[in-house]
Formats: sequence, structure tokens, C-alpha cells
Amino acid sequence: MNNVFKDIPAELPEELIQVLAGGAGCRIERILSRGHGSPEGFWYDQDEHEFVLLLSGEAELELQAPAERRRLGPGDWLTIAAHRRHRVNWTHPQRDTLWLAVFFAGDSGPASGQSGP
Amino acid sequence: MNNVFKDIPAELPEELIQVLAGGAGCRIERILSRGHGSPEGFWYDQDEHEFVLLLSGEAELELQAPAERRRLGPGDWLTIAAHRRHRVNWTHPQRDTLWLAVFFAGDSGPASGQSGP
Repeated sequence: MNNVFKDIPAELPEELIQVLAGGAGCRIERILSRGHGSPEGFWYDQDEHEFVLLLSGEAELELQAPAERRRLGPGDWLTIAAHRRHRVNWTHPQRDTLWLAVFFAGDSGPASGQSGP
Repeated sequence: MNNVFKDIPAELPEELIQVLAGGAGCRIERILSRGHGSPEGFWYDQDEHEFVLLLSGEAELELQAPAERRRLGPGDWLTIAAHRRHRVNWTHPQRDTLWLAVFFAGDSGPASGQSGP
């Protein structure tokens, strides 16, 4: 798969996660959702920071500390600091929502979307 | 800048590089080109691996060992292993070419575009 918009399965019973690249301190994933979201009451609580970029579709993320809901469309990105709890509230039920996620360890803990110049 | 397609300067005398996020072993950049390419005879030779994803526009990369030219359009990605020499031969002169680049150290040296599932 050399194009993130290709190799889209017709049926998608679960979210599809594919590792594109990575090394010791970094992992790059393509994630495909089609109406999928986090299970009721589930929150991600990760040891790594996560940079996430919406490539297509539409989604709503919910984050804690501070509490925040973020509606995302194509091109929107944010960085979720390690251990900042978050969940996917919603993705568009009829359209393919593609995410590029980069998980990284590190000495920096940027707040969501605030690290850019 | 919370959307990679926004905050595009009207004038772009040089390529624009903006660090979006990163930690000890990982750096995520947005790069904007408008007809820019590498200077004649110049080759990048980097200590880090580079994952690069074309978000918009059009470009041609040239790589060595093995010699290869890659025409890239939106969604195309590849991983350039550390110290694999490469250059930007061309970007579309009239359109904005946006790249997402992730530089990472690590124990893996994936060949270009071959690391995906």
C-alpha cells in the first residue's frame, strides 16, 4: 500500500490499523474507520504522545484534562500528550475516515494542537 | 496552524518548513513547496529515516542505491532509509505541494515504500 487513499476494503467490520513505518521511538499508522468509535465508557490512556492527522472523512474526538470535544475534517491535526485520556466519539457512518497517527516517546509533551508555529 | 491545508502564504520565495510535533526520537514537519526543488547536484544524506506523505500537489523525487525516480501525487508515501541519498527533482510550479515528513531514528531501516502491510 503506497497510497493512503487506496487499498480500502469493501467490508469493514472493525477499525483497520496498519503500521506504515517506524523505529525505536516512533510508529506511524494508517487507521481506517467507517462509523466506528470507541466503546461506551472506553478511554485511551497511552504511554506515548500521539500526533493525529485526519486525511479524509469526519470525526469527533473527546479529550479530558481539560475536557474538550474536537470535530475534525480533512487536514485537521492535533497532538495528544501521553496519558491525556481521549476517545473517538464518532466517525462519519457513510464515509471512510482515514487517520494518520504518529506515536512517539519523548521529552516533549505538547498540548493538543498548540505545538505548531 | 491546526489544519495542514491552511495558513498558506501568498508569497513563497523559499520552501517553508514547519515543525508540528516531536520528541526525542521523532520529528513531524509540514513542508510547503511551490515549484521548489533541490539545488542542482544537491543530495540529502540524512542520519534519520524519513517517512514522507504527499498531502497535495505533485512532485518527483529521485533516489540512489537503487537509482529510482518516484512521481508522487496526493496520498502517495514512502519511507526513505537513513543515508539513502535523495533529492526533490521537481514540484508543480503552479500548485501548492504539501508534504508531511516524519523523521525518526530507530532500529529499522525499511526500504522505500516497502514497509507497509
